[in-house]
Amino acid sequence: MEECIFCKIVKGEIPCYKVYEDDHVLAFEDINPIALGHTLIIPKRHAENLYEIPDEDLVAIHLAAKKIIRAMREALEPTGVACLQLNGKGANQVVMHYHFHLVPRHAGDPELPITTWELKPGDKDAIEETAKKIAAAIKS
Amino acid sequence: MEECIFCKIVKGEIPCYKVYEDDHVLAFEDINPIALGHTLIIPKRHAENLYEIPDEDLVAIHLAAKKIIRAMREALEPTGVACLQLNGKGANQVVMHYHFHLVPRHAGDPELPITTWELKPGDKDAIEETAKKIAAAIKS
Repeated sequence: MEECIFCKIVKGEIPCYKVYEDDHVLAFEDINPIALGHTLIIPKRHAENLYEIPDEDLVAIHLAAKKIIRAMREALEPTGVACLQLNGKGANQVVMHYHFHLVPRHAGDPELPITTWELKPGDKDAIEETAKKIAAAIKS
Repeated sequence: MEECIFCKIVKGEIPCYKVYEDDHVLAFEDINPIALGHTLIIPKRHAENLYEIPDEDLVAIHLAAKKIIRAMREALEPTGVACLQLNGKGANQVVMHYHFHLVPRHAGDPELPITTWELKPGDKDAIEETAKKIAAAIKS
Protein backbone atom coordinates (compact mmCIF):
# COMPACT_ATOMS: atom_id res chain seq x y z
CA MET A 1 0.00 0.00 0.00
CA GLU A 2 3.05 2.27 0.23
CA GLU A 3 2.48 3.72 -3.21
CA CYS A 4 -1.23 4.48 -2.92
CA ILE A 5 -1.83 8.23 -2.90
CA PHE A 6 -5.16 7.90 -1.09
CA CYS A 7 -3.61 5.74 1.64
CA LYS A 8 -1.05 8.53 2.07
CA ILE A 9 -3.85 11.06 2.45
CA VAL A 10 -5.51 8.81 5.07
CA LYS A 11 -2.20 8.62 6.99
CA GLY A 12 -1.76 12.40 6.80
CA GLU A 13 1.40 12.11 4.71
CA ILE A 14 -0.27 14.17 1.99
CA PRO A 15 -2.58 17.01 3.03
CA CYS A 16 -6.18 17.29 1.86
CA TYR A 17 -9.13 19.65 2.03
CA LYS A 18 -11.19 17.52 4.39
CA VAL A 19 -14.96 17.78 4.55
CA TYR A 20 -15.83 14.75 6.67
CA GLU A 21 -14.27 11.88 8.60
CA ASP A 22 -15.47 8.98 10.71
CA ASP A 23 -13.98 5.66 11.84
CA HIS A 24 -14.27 4.12 8.38
CA VAL A 25 -14.17 6.88 5.81
CA LEU A 26 -12.52 10.14 4.85
CA ALA A 27 -14.06 12.71 2.50
CA PHE A 28 -12.12 15.51 0.90
CA GLU A 29 -12.20 17.84 -2.08
CA ASP A 30 -10.82 16.68 -5.42
CA ILE A 31 -7.91 18.97 -6.27
CA ASN A 32 -8.65 18.47 -9.98
CA PRO A 33 -12.35 19.22 -9.65
CA ILE A 34 -14.87 18.81 -12.44
CA ALA A 35 -16.83 21.48 -10.58
CA LEU A 36 -16.23 23.42 -7.40
CA GLY A 37 -17.37 21.23 -4.51
CA HIS A 38 -16.34 17.99 -6.27
CA THR A 39 -15.85 15.69 -3.28
CA LEU A 40 -14.35 12.21 -2.93
CA ILE A 41 -15.29 9.73 -0.21
CA ILE A 42 -12.82 6.93 0.40
CA PRO A 43 -12.54 4.03 2.83
CA LYS A 44 -9.64 4.43 5.26
CA ARG A 45 -8.69 0.79 4.72
CA HIS A 46 -7.31 0.24 1.25
CA ALA A 47 -9.67 -1.53 -1.17
CA GLU A 48 -9.28 -1.19 -4.89
CA ASN A 49 -12.90 -1.07 -5.98
CA LEU A 50 -16.49 -2.18 -5.44
CA TYR A 51 -15.55 -5.80 -6.13
CA GLU A 52 -13.29 -5.81 -3.09
CA ILE A 53 -14.43 -3.26 -0.51
CA PRO A 54 -15.61 -4.86 2.77
CA ASP A 55 -19.35 -4.44 3.39
CA GLU A 56 -18.73 -2.47 6.56
CA ASP A 57 -16.72 0.17 4.70
CA LEU A 58 -19.12 0.24 1.76
CA VAL A 59 -22.03 0.97 4.08
CA ALA A 60 -20.04 3.72 5.82
CA ILE A 61 -19.20 5.33 2.45
CA HIS A 62 -22.85 5.65 1.47
CA LEU A 63 -24.14 6.81 4.84
CA ALA A 64 -21.44 9.50 4.64
CA ALA A 65 -22.50 10.31 1.06
CA LYS A 66 -26.02 11.08 2.26
CA LYS A 67 -24.69 13.42 4.97
CA ILE A 68 -22.40 15.14 2.48
CA ILE A 69 -24.95 15.59 -0.29
CA ARG A 70 -27.32 17.19 2.22
CA ALA A 71 -24.54 19.51 3.35
CA MET A 72 -23.75 20.34 -0.29
CA ARG A 73 -27.37 21.24 -0.91
CA GLU A 74 -27.30 23.63 2.01
CA ALA A 75 -23.83 25.08 1.40
CA LEU A 76 -23.69 25.26 -2.40
CA GLU A 77 -27.33 25.20 -3.58
CA PRO A 78 -26.62 23.11 -6.69
CA THR A 79 -29.35 22.24 -9.22
CA GLY A 80 -28.33 18.62 -8.80
CA VAL A 81 -25.51 16.34 -7.71
CA ALA A 82 -24.02 13.56 -9.86
CA CYS A 83 -22.55 10.63 -7.94
CA LEU A 84 -20.16 8.30 -9.66
CA GLN A 85 -17.71 5.58 -8.86
CA LEU A 86 -15.49 3.88 -11.40
CA ASN A 87 -14.23 0.33 -11.22
CA GLY A 88 -11.29 -0.77 -13.30
CA LYS A 89 -9.08 0.94 -15.83
CA GLY A 90 -11.64 0.13 -18.54
CA ALA A 91 -14.06 2.42 -16.72
CA ASN A 92 -11.47 5.19 -16.34
CA GLN A 93 -10.55 4.44 -12.72
CA VAL A 94 -7.29 6.36 -12.26
CA VAL A 95 -6.45 5.97 -8.55
CA MET A 96 -6.77 2.30 -7.65
CA HIS A 97 -8.30 2.92 -4.20
CA TYR A 98 -12.12 2.92 -4.08
CA HIS A 99 -13.48 6.47 -4.26
CA PHE A 100 -17.02 7.73 -4.57
CA HIS A 101 -17.37 11.09 -6.36
CA LEU A 102 -20.03 13.68 -5.59
CA VAL A 103 -20.13 16.39 -8.25
CA PRO A 104 -22.47 19.33 -7.66
CA ARG A 105 -24.05 20.76 -10.79
CA HIS A 106 -25.09 24.32 -11.51
CA ALA A 107 -27.03 25.81 -14.43
CA GLY A 108 -24.82 26.17 -17.48
CA ASP A 109 -22.21 23.65 -16.33
CA PRO A 110 -20.58 21.82 -19.24
CA GLU A 111 -21.26 18.18 -20.07
CA LEU A 112 -19.85 15.68 -17.62
CA PRO A 113 -18.00 12.90 -19.41
CA ILE A 114 -17.27 9.87 -17.29
CA THR A 115 -14.59 8.18 -19.22
CA THR A 116 -12.42 10.93 -20.60
CA TRP A 117 -12.46 13.74 -18.14
CA GLU A 118 -9.53 16.07 -18.13
CA LEU A 119 -7.51 16.39 -14.91
CA LYS A 120 -7.07 20.11 -14.44
CA PRO A 121 -5.97 21.56 -11.10
CA GLY A 122 -8.53 23.83 -9.47
CA ASP A 123 -8.02 27.10 -7.60
CA LYS A 124 -6.74 26.00 -4.20
CA ASP A 125 -8.18 28.92 -2.25
CA ALA A 126 -11.61 28.36 -3.75
CA ILE A 127 -11.36 24.62 -3.06
CA GLU A 128 -10.33 25.23 0.56
CA GLU A 129 -13.16 27.69 1.12
CA THR A 130 -15.68 25.29 -0.43
CA ALA A 131 -14.43 22.41 1.73
CA LYS A 132 -15.00 24.53 4.84
CA LYS A 133 -18.50 25.48 3.72
CA ILE A 134 -19.52 21.86 3.11
CA ALA A 135 -17.87 20.66 6.33
CA ALA A 136 -19.69 23.34 8.33
CA ALA A 137 -23.06 22.25 6.91
CA ILE A 138 -22.69 18.56 7.81
CA LYS A 139 -25.16 17.35 10.42
CA SER A 140 -23.94 14.50 12.60
CA MET B 1 -46.80 7.50 -6.18
CA GLU B 2 -49.34 6.36 -8.77
CA GLU B 3 -47.46 8.01 -11.60
CA CYS B 4 -43.96 6.72 -10.79
CA ILE B 5 -42.81 4.26 -13.44
CA PHE B 6 -40.35 2.55 -11.08
CA CYS B 7 -43.04 2.08 -8.42
CA LYS B 8 -45.11 0.41 -11.14
CA ILE B 9 -42.22 -1.92 -11.92
CA VAL B 10 -41.90 -2.76 -8.20
CA LYS B 11 -45.64 -3.57 -8.07
CA GLY B 12 -45.38 -5.74 -11.19
CA GLU B 13 -47.68 -3.46 -13.18
CA ILE B 14 -44.90 -2.95 -15.73
CA PRO B 15 -42.63 -5.91 -16.53
CA CYS B 16 -38.85 -5.76 -16.22
CA TYR B 17 -35.80 -7.86 -16.94
CA LYS B 18 -34.98 -8.63 -13.33
CA VAL B 19 -31.48 -9.51 -12.21
CA TYR B 20 -31.85 -9.37 -8.42
CA GLU B 21 -34.40 -8.77 -5.68
CA ASP B 22 -34.45 -8.75 -1.90
CA ASP B 23 -36.73 -7.26 0.78
CA HIS B 24 -35.56 -3.71 0.10
CA VAL B 25 -34.38 -3.48 -3.48
CA LEU B 26 -35.08 -4.55 -7.03
CA ALA B 27 -32.47 -4.63 -9.80
CA PHE B 28 -33.30 -4.87 -13.47
CA GLU B 29 -31.89 -4.08 -16.89
CA ASP B 30 -32.26 -0.58 -18.33
CA ILE B 31 -34.33 -0.92 -21.50
CA ASN B 32 -32.51 2.10 -22.95
CA PRO B 33 -29.06 0.78 -22.12
CA ILE B 34 -25.86 2.76 -22.55
CA ALA B 35 -24.21 -0.64 -22.90
CA LEU B 36 -25.50 -4.20 -22.79
CA GLY B 37 -25.73 -5.19 -19.12
CA HIS B 38 -26.63 -1.65 -17.98
CA THR B 39 -28.44 -2.40 -14.73
CA LEU B 40 -30.49 -0.23 -12.37
CA ILE B 41 -30.91 -0.88 -8.66
CA ILE B 42 -33.87 0.81 -6.99
CA PRO B 43 -35.38 0.84 -3.52
CA LYS B 44 -38.82 -0.80 -3.41
CA ARG B 45 -40.11 2.05 -1.25
CA HIS B 46 -40.34 5.26 -3.24
CA ALA B 47 -37.63 7.83 -2.48
CA GLU B 48 -36.72 10.52 -4.95
CA ASN B 49 -32.97 10.69 -4.48
CA LEU B 50 -29.98 10.41 -2.15
CA TYR B 51 -31.20 13.37 -0.09
CA GLU B 52 -34.32 11.41 0.89
CA ILE B 53 -33.69 7.67 0.76
CA PRO B 54 -33.91 6.00 4.20
CA ASP B 55 -30.57 4.67 5.47
CA GLU B 56 -31.87 1.10 5.54
CA ASP B 57 -32.72 1.19 1.83
CA LEU B 58 -29.50 2.99 0.91
CA VAL B 59 -27.44 0.30 2.62
CA ALA B 60 -29.42 -2.43 0.86
CA ILE B 61 -28.85 -0.76 -2.53
CA HIS B 62 -25.08 -0.79 -2.13
CA LEU B 63 -24.79 -4.28 -0.70
CA ALA B 64 -26.81 -5.40 -3.74
CA ALA B 65 -24.52 -3.35 -6.02
CA LYS B 66 -21.52 -5.32 -4.78
CA LYS B 67 -23.27 -8.63 -5.47
CA ILE B 68 -24.32 -7.48 -8.93
CA ILE B 69 -20.95 -6.05 -9.98
CA ARG B 70 -19.32 -9.35 -9.03
CA ALA B 71 -21.91 -11.22 -11.05
CA MET B 72 -21.32 -8.85 -13.99
CA ARG B 73 -17.60 -9.53 -13.84
CA GLU B 74 -18.25 -13.25 -14.04
CA ALA B 75 -21.04 -13.13 -16.62
CA LEU B 76 -19.91 -10.33 -18.93
CA GLU B 77 -16.14 -9.98 -18.36
CA PRO B 78 -16.11 -6.18 -18.74
CA THR B 79 -12.89 -4.16 -18.61
CA GLY B 80 -14.55 -2.03 -15.94
CA VAL B 81 -17.89 -0.97 -14.54
CA ALA B 82 -19.00 2.64 -14.11
CA CYS B 83 -21.48 3.27 -11.30
CA LEU B 84 -23.51 6.43 -11.27
CA GLN B 85 -26.49 7.91 -9.56
CA LEU B 86 -28.00 11.28 -10.43
CA ASN B 87 -29.80 13.59 -8.04
CA GLY B 88 -32.04 16.35 -9.34
CA LYS B 89 -32.99 17.52 -12.78
CA GLY B 90 -29.85 19.69 -12.84
CA ALA B 91 -27.83 16.49 -12.77
CA ASN B 92 -29.91 14.85 -15.52
CA GLN B 93 -32.08 12.74 -13.21
CA VAL B 94 -34.96 11.68 -15.48
CA VAL B 95 -37.01 9.25 -13.38
CA MET B 96 -37.60 10.81 -9.97
CA HIS B 97 -37.20 7.57 -8.02
CA TYR B 98 -33.68 6.86 -6.69
CA HIS B 99 -31.80 4.55 -9.05
CA PHE B 100 -28.19 3.43 -9.02
CA HIS B 101 -26.74 2.61 -12.45
CA LEU B 102 -24.11 -0.03 -13.12
CA VAL B 103 -22.71 0.27 -16.64
CA PRO B 104 -20.26 -2.42 -17.77
CA ARG B 105 -17.53 -1.19 -20.10
CA HIS B 106 -15.76 -3.06 -22.88
CA ALA B 107 -12.77 -2.07 -25.01
CA GLY B 108 -13.76 0.37 -27.73
CA ASP B 109 -16.97 1.51 -26.02
CA PRO B 110 -17.83 5.13 -26.78
CA GLU B 111 -17.51 7.94 -24.27
CA LEU B 112 -20.04 7.87 -21.46
CA PRO B 113 -21.61 11.28 -20.97
CA ILE B 114 -23.48 11.68 -17.70
CA THR B 115 -25.61 14.66 -18.39
CA THR B 116 -26.73 14.32 -21.97
CA TRP B 117 -27.05 10.68 -22.71
CA GLU B 118 -29.43 9.66 -25.42
CA LEU B 119 -32.30 7.33 -24.52
CA LYS B 120 -32.27 4.70 -27.22
CA PRO B 121 -34.15 1.41 -26.81
CA GLY B 122 -31.92 -1.65 -26.78
CA ASP B 123 -32.49 -5.04 -28.38
CA LYS B 124 -34.98 -6.75 -26.06
CA ASP B 125 -33.81 -10.29 -26.73
CA ALA B 126 -30.20 -9.34 -26.01
CA ILE B 127 -31.27 -7.48 -22.84
CA GLU B 128 -33.30 -10.43 -21.62
CA GLU B 129 -30.46 -12.86 -22.27
CA THR B 130 -27.99 -10.58 -20.48
CA ALA B 131 -30.33 -10.21 -17.48
CA LYS B 132 -30.48 -13.99 -17.18
CA LYS B 133 -26.69 -14.29 -17.38
CA ILE B 134 -26.13 -11.71 -14.63
CA ALA B 135 -28.91 -13.14 -12.45
CA ALA B 136 -27.45 -16.64 -12.77
CA ALA B 137 -24.03 -15.41 -11.63
CA ILE B 138 -25.24 -13.72 -8.43
CA LYS B 139 -24.00 -15.34 -5.24
CA SER B 140 -26.29 -15.01 -2.25
